[in-house]
Amino acid sequence: MKAVRIHAYGNADVLAYEDAPMPQIAADDVLVRVVNASVNPVDWKIREGHAKSMLSYTFPLILGWDVSGVVEAIGENVTRFKVGDAVFSRPDIKRDGTYAEYVAIRETELAHKPKTVSHAEAASLPLAGITAWEVLITTARITSRQRVLIHAGAGGVGSLAIQLAKTRGAYVIATASGKNVSLVRSLGADEVIDYRAQAFEKVVKDVDVVFDTLGGQVQDVSWNVLKPGGILVSIVSPPSEERAKELGMRAGFVFIEPSAPILTQLAALVDAGAIRPIVGAEYALKDIAKAHAFSQSGRAVGKIVLYVGQP
Amino acid sequence: MKAVRIHAYGNADVLAYEDAPMPQIAADDVLVRVVNASVNPVDWKIREGHAKSMLSYTFPLILGWDVSGVVEAIGENVTRFKVGDAVFSRPDIKRDGTYAEYVAIRETELAHKPKTVSHAEAASLPLAGITAWEVLITTARITSRQRVLIHAGAGGVGSLAIQLAKTRGAYVIATASGKNVSLVRSLGADEVIDYRAQAFEKVVKDVDVVFDTLGGQVQDVSWNVLKPGGILVSIVSPPSEERAKELGMRAGFVFIEPSAPILTQLAALVDAGAIRPIVGAEYALKDIAKAHAFSQSGRAVGKIVLYVGQP
Repeated sequence: MKAVRIHAYGNADVLAYEDAPMPQIAADDVLVRVVNASVNPVDWKIREGHAKSMLSYTFPLILGWDVSGVVEAIGENVTRFKVGDAVFSRPDIKRDGTYAEYVAIRETELAHKPKTVSHAEAASLPLAGITAWEVLITTARITSRQRVLIHAGAGGVGSLAIQLAKTRGAYVIATASGKNVSLVRSLGADEVIDYRAQAFEKVVKDVDVVFDTLGGQVQDVSWNVLKPGGILVSIVSPPSEERAKELGMRAGFVFIEPSAPILTQLAALVDAGAIRPIVGAEYALKDIAKAHAFSQSGRAVGKIVLYVGQP
Repeated sequence: MKAVRIHAYGNADVLAYEDAPMPQIAADDVLVRVVNASVNPVDWKIREGHAKSMLSYTFPLILGWDVSGVVEAIGENVTRFKVGDAVFSRPDIKRDGTYAEYVAIRETELAHKPKTVSHAEAASLPLAGITAWEVLITTARITSRQRVLIHAGAGGVGSLAIQLAKTRGAYVIATASGKNVSLVRSLGADEVIDYRAQAFEKVVKDVDVVFDTLGGQVQDVSWNVLKPGGILVSIVSPPSEERAKELGMRAGFVFIEPSAPILTQLAALVDAGAIRPIVGAEYALKDIAKAHAFSQSGRAVGKIVLYVGQP
């Protein structure tokens, strides 16, 4: 099969679109024929070797951990899926990924695809959607009328987080810039701050939850807009527990894991029209270097989707 | 290039997935590399020869008249598009269609693709969206608070028509059955009639506009639910002008033509989150016979999309 593999850590030059052996499936695995995959920042972070200390990969490694596709074969213990089912997943990041024509995925990491969107849209959801869910629902436990600040509201995670927070009745403040302001408003944000025109910390205060998708200085300044007892949750780097304690606030950090139950709930929200996946760019699998460059530019709106195979 | 052609009218057996010559572009044409196409009932009606009297095709004929893709080349008079632009279209039905890796389309029939959805979703929009627009906005001229009955609200045209009518502030009544009732409600319909559980003419009355997507007996009975001066618009067969006159009502029939201006407005509505394309089934181009069979079954929800090429 065709796949994009890396044989060493490095810049985009290490991305090799080449022939790779078909994945072998274990008894609990499902072999998925990939129709679409999507690109996440973790893909190029792993490519560059930033996860070396946590994850010991052997080369060659197939990157990519978002997929929508069709069940091609099932392991002997698999009961929830049959050949031909349309499925989507954010599979185990410790295994070979989804930049490939086929991928082996544990049944427990797989869910039935939403019924009203294409594979392209479905492939944009798993990693970003699970992330938004784990931050807002599992960690921050947002409730109706709580005030939530979401950084980078036009991004892959932010665009889903805004909509997910609105399904729980929260009051959503999001940052964006320029022409993305209207997109973010259309996703349901109650207030949108154009961060190029004004510093968010000057206009936002008393929020219950900050969703940090950027880290660094933005995370640091975000403490200033929280109300006492509020929580700052990051997906980039763990916020300081000491700082949180001093301020009478809470810190959270989410490192996501595969979750079929969350995917099933996301699919239902999509089919109910409550969540609209935003696909802002599309590439062929062989053009993966361009897709990574665009992801790394930070200019992508919504998700970057890869076209891999046929439904 | 690969294409699906017919060499004679007939049943699904005449659909030939085969090599075909690259389209030649005229000075006003754009050559589009097809990423996704979609299936419409007109495709299999033409395949079966039902349009013989109106349209004199020469064989072999490439079917399909919905596309989203990328500009590959432009004719010398083309000014609105450049190579690499993402575009979508419902092109001229008198020319070779979009069940192919490349298609030549007049610049005047082409629009820039919506920015927040995939090519798959974009390919589902043109024909059905232009149809809904021509019926509701051009012909019926719906206004705020008018009552509109839309038959087959879960179908490819109906699912867009409901949302388009809501953008104009109309009160929308739609028919659907079984599990599609909740989908149709999620699209914004104010009332949904499960036509298997009750006859629509028993529960609907005094509507300003009937959107007939079914023809036959449904069209015939639809006169009974219109208010005086109301309009019955069909996309299947022209309603009787005599009957309309007798009843003090109006009849409309829409046979759609390509329209870049309408596509541009549809794209803006999609990007604003006001219209959500419903993609209910996806097939590879080579599986076109299955896609036609599913379309002909009348059981499809939303649109049937074909995966053809790479973005």
